[in-house]
Amino acid sequence: MERRKFLNSLGGVTGALIATPVIAAESKPQTSVIKEIETIMPGLWKFTIGKPEKITPQSTRMVEPALASMQNLPVVAACPTKPVGEVNSRGVLVRLGLTKDEYVYGLGLQLQSFQQRGLKKMLRVNADPLADSGDSHAPIPFFVTTSGYGILIDTARYATVYMGNKKYKPKQVPKEIVDKNGNDGWNALNGPYERLGLGLDSEILIEIPRCQGVDIYVFGGPTMMQAVQRYNLFSGGGALPPRWGLGFWYRVQSDFTQDQVKGMADYFRTSKIPCDVIGLEPHWQTHSYSCTYVWGERFGNPAQMVKELKDDHFRINLWEHAFVHPKSPIYEDLLPHSGDYEVWEGLVPDFIGKDARQIYGDFHKKEHVDIGVSGYKADECDNSDFTGNWSFPELSKFPSGADGEQMHSLIGLRYQDTIMAVFNEKKQRTYGLVRSSGALASPYPFVLYSDLYQHRTFIHGVAQSGFSGLLWTPEVRHAVSNEDLIRRMQTVVFSPLAMINAWYLKNAPWKQIERKANNEGRFAENWEQLEAQCREIIELRMKMIPAIHAAFVRYHQQGIPPFRALVMDYPADPAVRNISNQFLLGDNLLIAPVVEGEKTRKVYLPEGDWYDLWTSEKFSGKQEYVFNVPLNLIPVFVRAGTILSLAKPTLHTEDPESWQLTVFVYGENSQPAVLFEDDGSHSPELNEVKLVWDNKKQKGSLLRSGKYAGPKYSVTEWKFIR
Amino acid sequence: MERRKFLNSLGGVTGALIATPVIAAESKPQTSVIKEIETIMPGLWKFTIGKPEKITPQSTRMVEPALASMQNLPVVAACPTKPVGEVNSRGVLVRLGLTKDEYVYGLGLQLQSFQQRGLKKMLRVNADPLADSGDSHAPIPFFVTTSGYGILIDTARYATVYMGNKKYKPKQVPKEIVDKNGNDGWNALNGPYERLGLGLDSEILIEIPRCQGVDIYVFGGPTMMQAVQRYNLFSGGGALPPRWGLGFWYRVQSDFTQDQVKGMADYFRTSKIPCDVIGLEPHWQTHSYSCTYVWGERFGNPAQMVKELKDDHFRINLWEHAFVHPKSPIYEDLLPHSGDYEVWEGLVPDFIGKDARQIYGDFHKKEHVDIGVSGYKADECDNSDFTGNWSFPELSKFPSGADGEQMHSLIGLRYQDTIMAVFNEKKQRTYGLVRSSGALASPYPFVLYSDLYQHRTFIHGVAQSGFSGLLWTPEVRHAVSNEDLIRRMQTVVFSPLAMINAWYLKNAPWKQIERKANNEGRFAENWEQLEAQCREIIELRMKMIPAIHAAFVRYHQQGIPPFRALVMDYPADPAVRNISNQFLLGDNLLIAPVVEGEKTRKVYLPEGDWYDLWTSEKFSGKQEYVFNVPLNLIPVFVRAGTILSLAKPTLHTEDPESWQLTVFVYGENSQPAVLFEDDGSHSPELNEVKLVWDNKKQKGSLLRSGKYAGPKYSVTEWKFIR
Repeated sequence: MERRKFLNSLGGVTGALIATPVIAAESKPQTSVIKEIETIMPGLWKFTIGKPEKITPQSTRMVEPALASMQNLPVVAACPTKPVGEVNSRGVLVRLGLTKDEYVYGLGLQLQSFQQRGLKKMLRVNADPLADSGDSHAPIPFFVTTSGYGILIDTARYATVYMGNKKYKPKQVPKEIVDKNGNDGWNALNGPYERLGLGLDSEILIEIPRCQGVDIYVFGGPTMMQAVQRYNLFSGGGALPPRWGLGFWYRVQSDFTQDQVKGMADYFRTSKIPCDVIGLEPHWQTHSYSCTYVWGERFGNPAQMVKELKDDHFRINLWEHAFVHPKSPIYEDLLPHSGDYEVWEGLVPDFIGKDARQIYGDFHKKEHVDIGVSGYKADECDNSDFTGNWSFPELSKFPSGADGEQMHSLIGLRYQDTIMAVFNEKKQRTYGLVRSSGALASPYPFVLYSDLYQHRTFIHGVAQSGFSGLLWTPEVRHAVSNEDLIRRMQTVVFSPLAMINAWYLKNAPWKQIERKANNEGRFAENWEQLEAQCREIIELRMKMIPAIHAAFVRYHQQGIPPFRALVMDYPADPAVRNISNQFLLGDNLLIAPVVEGEKTRKVYLPEGDWYDLWTSEKFSGKQEYVFNVPLNLIPVFVRAGTILSLAKPTLHTEDPESWQLTVFVYGENSQPAVLFEDDGSHSPELNEVKLVWDNKKQKGSLLRSGKYAGPKYSVTEWKFIR
Repeated sequence: MERRKFLNSLGGVTGALIATPVIAAESKPQTSVIKEIETIMPGLWKFTIGKPEKITPQSTRMVEPALASMQNLPVVAACPTKPVGEVNSRGVLVRLGLTKDEYVYGLGLQLQSFQQRGLKKMLRVNADPLADSGDSHAPIPFFVTTSGYGILIDTARYATVYMGNKKYKPKQVPKEIVDKNGNDGWNALNGPYERLGLGLDSEILIEIPRCQGVDIYVFGGPTMMQAVQRYNLFSGGGALPPRWGLGFWYRVQSDFTQDQVKGMADYFRTSKIPCDVIGLEPHWQTHSYSCTYVWGERFGNPAQMVKELKDDHFRINLWEHAFVHPKSPIYEDLLPHSGDYEVWEGLVPDFIGKDARQIYGDFHKKEHVDIGVSGYKADECDNSDFTGNWSFPELSKFPSGADGEQMHSLIGLRYQDTIMAVFNEKKQRTYGLVRSSGALASPYPFVLYSDLYQHRTFIHGVAQSGFSGLLWTPEVRHAVSNEDLIRRMQTVVFSPLAMINAWYLKNAPWKQIERKANNEGRFAENWEQLEAQCREIIELRMKMIPAIHAAFVRYHQQGIPPFRALVMDYPADPAVRNISNQFLLGDNLLIAPVVEGEKTRKVYLPEGDWYDLWTSEKFSGKQEYVFNVPLNLIPVFVRAGTILSLAKPTLHTEDPESWQLTVFVYGENSQPAVLFEDDGSHSPELNEVKLVWDNKKQKGSLLRSGKYAGPKYSVTEWKFIR
């Protein structure tokens, strides 16, 4: 079946909805097994209850499923779970069985929790969620379980999920009553085990308000990882950032002029600190809250600036949000294609509709992308209940038929579509940031971020986002100490987007961490030492690019998250179920970031042997260690058998020397490693580069396949580690 | 009209609903001015939109309005606001005008915000709300504005309120665009003034989900205070605690035995520290999570213990929650009268129905109240999204027809009814605690509390709760330092319920603030000094009882909150609009609690002259002062013209010497003060005691009216302060 046809058959925007209402929407609730209406393909099933809404993540999606790649996943013969559901006066209720030892992960970006069984979440889009209530920049009604399947509830409503610890009352007085908290061992919450509803078969309850039907997609595994892969491929396959996107990013102070921007670029080059992307913050526009998208007086000749920077191998990324100021040239055109409420006196474009996307995209193309702008930071597209209530109300109405609640769940997604379409049209790749996302998001080359700033929370985000097709950056803004700055820098270089966001600092944070002094140009004593430390950390990022890029190619082709929690690779190991302060980069690197104040660090190593990246010392897995953590090093462990390629650190990714590799072979039983040479084009040509070590001969070889004729990897040195 | 008849006419539980659907519930939304169906009485109007639900705060209320008292309020000729509304596919939308300089207060207990204009709230019952999202132990769809009226949306749904900062988009490009944050003065949120939607006429938007109609009550003022009074009197009039309830409370460690309880009582008496009420925590029962309500083996003879303590002038208050354990004798009887989901393996009684109230109440009467128990601490009746998700789901069903969402909004209220009915039947007064409450709550002699423990938040609660017919205690549990303990003690003695909740401490916290050492009996050095400081603070409470009691009588008779924010008395003074760290006790005392670490304290004194309670120094009002705040003193200011009576501090309120007053006359133009002698009975006989100062003769007199023949106030000394 052709892709477009397939998408249509699923009820895409241009197709008819497939909806077989098996339960009529009546005031009297009615429970029924939902009719299993469709085996979409081996390992993917769709159930329909009632009459689904017109506006959903699936119905408004713009990217087609990666059907061919899905065929490479293992066959799953039987649907691993059978939803039960009803339409009632409260909306739709979906119930799903949960076995007694099943753990649950996902629900989009959940910064305040990891394993979800036992918890309740209302999946409401919100900026800066302090409490573990389900409010999130990117809540998603998708989750996977350790039983090896995933569930997507195709709704743009704020669904409420009870993750498996509710029990019906008995019909009569129970005959056997276990005394759980009488006179001995009293515990208000009955202990974490019971609190999570473990030890008993249970069920997941999902309420979707304000609707009379919903589609439910079941993604088979058979492993949890494969269920995630299937979801990511169904979403369209993982994003593949251009190589420059994996370099280092620096966002300059918001009110910088064109000359100051160029000055900062010069600083990076003359100080020999790697940087590939410079980000501009709100003030580049004539008006920014709401936005005009028009270069302001600080930028006399933006086209020339962008070109000069490009010649110096810098890309430019522009901050913006989607609320359109009356002075913006597109305001009038967008008036009929926007919601009925304004935000910051600006229009809210209805990106679900083609017209708004076209008007918005065309202007961005003409004003920015045509002169060389490489991408955007799409801010403020989440909701704002906790942060000043500045966004549009949930009762808003949009021309597409969406209400404000649905639009809050979808605007982050369709905003990414709008921007991506500009680059698609120009056959370019982009990479950027977005503050809200949602279901089926894996193909979008946008990374989530937050104004929250707990370092631990930020580390958690790297691990937790991987369950739901999301990318997350623990961006570095300010620091309370040199140690804090170093620790945060060490974390961000092991993330999808390595960035300092210095929007309120005139000078690089290592020159002066104290904001006022920084802006007054009073530098810290010995700042050069801190600069050197930060340079070294950024160089570590540059060394890691071949490995990170290869992990992204696997995300793109196979749906395997490049950064992910340990439990995704080791679902049967009870020790990793709650670990979100360590994560995997690709298949073979285990990262255990350290936060300020920690002198030692507990690290759990899963099964197998692992090597300390820095000392090459070998450790047996399936146990926890306590390591000393010297400030200059972030704990990184390499799985035995890995062939790890580190690039020569260069000032930017266009330096030909960045293709020179030092290859480390960890142990005698090494497995071939695969890297990819990427031509950077829109539909990239990828050479597959296989690195193989012959242990007998103690000799390595590089085997290339593919037609890309640009810069190529070469191995400067092979190092065998016993 | 008779009270019962009147209540019925409003659609009480025994009456028919008055519902005139002016807008049919259709899928197509329809906006319309709601028909003003009823002027209930001068100053109170009811509007109906669509077909209201059967289960609401008003339809399930058990206490009748204090009609006679309402007649004493000023006549308000015209309804001060006209709601507009519609029934649509999202539920009901209510819109209310808001003028450009109108400020809004209330929405029940809102621990994270004070003035509500500009904010969004979803009024969802939840324990321990960390974020300002509307989650609350006691959210209430009632608010008042500085324009002098109150609004009650009569719903048990989780309504969402947008408090006046949303604007429709214009029909065309605005001709005049004020550049607010272009190149100069950039501010993402447009400054607090605009963020609150001030400076422009705006509207309040209220969405009520899952219903097809709602009643809206408008309470006229003409002042904000009088609107609150009208609401409180409509609710039934404010609670009047028995005099012992205003003494000092101490909750002992949860696993204390009968002898340990008596030992703690002895300690208070021999150490000469006042105490009127001892509270028992979970372990007094055979099983407590869920509850049996049956005395456990730690209490060999509870009746005797209660009697012995009563003879020593202690009351006993019992902790419990409403979730009924299978071993409870009432479990089987309650099975058909409870919700379909269990909590902690216990039943959730349907207190909206008479049967559940009767079964539950009868057992409590027999087991506890008949042997002398004075009241309860009704725990855990809020929801638990953030704290382990232990409560019943919103999709639960109850025999009364309520679903779980409605029950979460109502269970705290109907639980209070259930307990109050037991005491009503015995013609006794009670005073206790409850962790959730809601609309129309002022008549309930129950005080709210929280597991949250920020001292500043707790102070805020005293001021903020007064807008919505709620009482709040900043209970003292542990302390991080002696200073913290003293500061918290100083706050709690100026609150509706002065209590230490030492449920996890074997010894009084002043003996050892460190938990482990406390429980091991290792006391701090010089603990006697800290004990003496705390004794003095508790004695201050005992001195204040006549004033606090009189304020409660005004709450009872006139609906005036005994503890309240300054803005309620000074709505026109812009300086007090955001002050929630000071509050008024009655009409004449201004309390400005201090938190640990503060060496000075800013205090705003409103118009008039004020005297420092401790130094008698006089200060002119309408200005802010910075005071030094020595640790032993909490800043308290007395309005010029006040005649303040301080009681002789005694060990309990039954000591006849507690009626001996020292009377302080503040300034030459003193106004007569009124205290009340209270016989403590169910329908109390109250003598009115007027204290008058003749400035010429420099002589005071006490004028008594009433028939109560028990202990009487006498003045030991008059002190004139110039």
